[in-house]
Amino acid sequence: MTQTQIPNQMTAVVLDSFTGPETLHVEQRPVPKPGKDEVLVKVAASPINPSDLAFLGGNYGFDNPPPVVPGGEGSGTVVAVGPGPMGRYFLGKRVACLSNGERDGIWAEYVVASTKGGVFPLDKSVSLEQGAMSVINPLTAVAFLEITKGGGHKAIVLTAAASALGQMVNRLGRSEGIQVINVVRRDAQVELLKAQGATAVLNSSDVDFDRQLHEVCHQYDARLAFDAVAGPMTGQLLKAMPKNSTVTVYSCLSHKSPQTNVDQIVFEGKTVTGFWLGPWLYSTKNLLQILMLWRRSQKLISTDLKSEIRVRYPFQEARKAVQEYTDHMTGGKILLTPII
Amino acid sequence: MTQTQIPNQMTAVVLDSFTGPETLHVEQRPVPKPGKDEVLVKVAASPINPSDLAFLGGNYGFDNPPPVVPGGEGSGTVVAVGPGPMGRYFLGKRVACLSNGERDGIWAEYVVASTKGGVFPLDKSVSLEQGAMSVINPLTAVAFLEITKGGGHKAIVLTAAASALGQMVNRLGRSEGIQVINVVRRDAQVELLKAQGATAVLNSSDVDFDRQLHEVCHQYDARLAFDAVAGPMTGQLLKAMPKNSTVTVYSCLSHKSPQTNVDQIVFEGKTVTGFWLGPWLYSTKNLLQILMLWRRSQKLISTDLKSEIRVRYPFQEARKAVQEYTDHMTGGKILLTPII
Repeated sequence: MTQTQIPNQMTAVVLDSFTGPETLHVEQRPVPKPGKDEVLVKVAASPINPSDLAFLGGNYGFDNPPPVVPGGEGSGTVVAVGPGPMGRYFLGKRVACLSNGERDGIWAEYVVASTKGGVFPLDKSVSLEQGAMSVINPLTAVAFLEITKGGGHKAIVLTAAASALGQMVNRLGRSEGIQVINVVRRDAQVELLKAQGATAVLNSSDVDFDRQLHEVCHQYDARLAFDAVAGPMTGQLLKAMPKNSTVTVYSCLSHKSPQTNVDQIVFEGKTVTGFWLGPWLYSTKNLLQILMLWRRSQKLISTDLKSEIRVRYPFQEARKAVQEYTDHMTGGKILLTPII
Repeated sequence: MTQTQIPNQMTAVVLDSFTGPETLHVEQRPVPKPGKDEVLVKVAASPINPSDLAFLGGNYGFDNPPPVVPGGEGSGTVVAVGPGPMGRYFLGKRVACLSNGERDGIWAEYVVASTKGGVFPLDKSVSLEQGAMSVINPLTAVAFLEITKGGGHKAIVLTAAASALGQMVNRLGRSEGIQVINVVRRDAQVELLKAQGATAVLNSSDVDFDRQLHEVCHQYDARLAFDAVAGPMTGQLLKAMPKNSTVTVYSCLSHKSPQTNVDQIVFEGKTVTGFWLGPWLYSTKNLLQILMLWRRSQKLISTDLKSEIRVRYPFQEARKAVQEYTDHMTGGKILLTPII
């Protein structure tokens, strides 16, 4: 292990139990040491994503038990490396990292990340702040477009479409000629997306939303939906979309299981399936392909894959920051940083 | 149109409303006339299938409104043909027919069937009675094995496994080296399947059924289920099966929509999809391929794809017959016939 002036202790955000943000606090913890095929990253910034909220509530696919450091992605500089062929390549580099749920997350001054798909070199055009948000949403957006085009789809439905991810998918869709049918739940979100150039935006709070959705799905022959809401929304999508459609659930903002209807499943040939970035990346691509996808996405971080920043909070104010994000999830990302 | 001593009137079973078998009765109706690419079949026999029960209750994918003649499949002899290239080929032949929901079904002395996939020539080895049951269950069983092998699966889960279809899938599975994990709900059904040679049979009424199902699904790496029950059973299957499994729902014996769980869908990559014989046949195969599949299945009607006959009833006793089948769906098929 090579190292450069690394302290023994660090400030880390710690979650004591999977009961939401109430037990979030900071404490001093030993700086972790990178093992084989691992690097130590001095963290610069980490966003709060919807997936982090799910993690805090115990509703995420990771099973590392509390007390645990949350934080699914972030950016920083590699300051030490463990044994393994890739470590030297990363030493000193600015990187983005992705938590895989096998160890502590990124809301800390230092984090250990795996060179086997957990750490990515930032393009020189990408700032550490934008880099902190350049894995989960950008690669998910790129994945959605890849799945869309791979299935021969010309139109897709997107729920929670005003999210940072939703805005990225809209921009990529316009760049690549895919019609995006956006579903949001407030008029302000309708206006936001239309101001950005979206042509099809529905408000699920409208009394005749189901009819509108049916009409526009059939107009564009939209047979693929990416659904972040789940619960009854999944059932509404299944009902509205043409025969042989697929609803791909990737989050659960409703906190309810995806609803289905046997008529839609059996007699209309519709499918409910899921998407999770990590398994999608690692099951459909080898490391070289992932790196090529990464480089392509890095070139778009200042345009199609840009995230707006609303506000920055130090780790010490993580609980407040999470609460603010929970109360208002659209309108720019909230970044956590070691210091302001 | 060519015809041979066809009366003007016939006895037909008629359903007055989609409220179950209560409104079933027989009446005299005009014998229908075959149009272009259609034949007239003098019906010999027609079974009561689970799909017929769903149809009677308005829970099937067909939308021909009552009053309507039920009956999804049957056998008989072609006695008249309409214009079109295939009609002459069928005239005088013993055939099986499949209703497509666009016109009256097969519980009548005569039925019109389409030469474009609605009528199939019986092999000379197949009796009219076995032929009456040689479309829906046999082709579904063959389809299940084709889907299984096409997906590279070595093991599948089957619910309602003691049904006529379930027994066929078990026999085909043994012939083709596919491990079938059977789920039934009564001890007598466990014994029935084991006596036929099934090695994995679970009773969903057992208190530790979920644990047993998890264990056996992982033991055989069973990632594909064919589910006739839906409702909570779909959720139990999703939970018990390994990551990236698919539950294919093809019926709804529970009368409840398939349950899902967001953790299974998103984080374990599991999928709920559907199967319906007609769309599967006509979307995955051309007419020549369907005919080849048909001929292959006809050769197995007296062995792997055999149906046991419990009892025969004349059309006049259709309501009683349906009630008897509803009360006891395993233990051999009930055939409806013009006369006994």
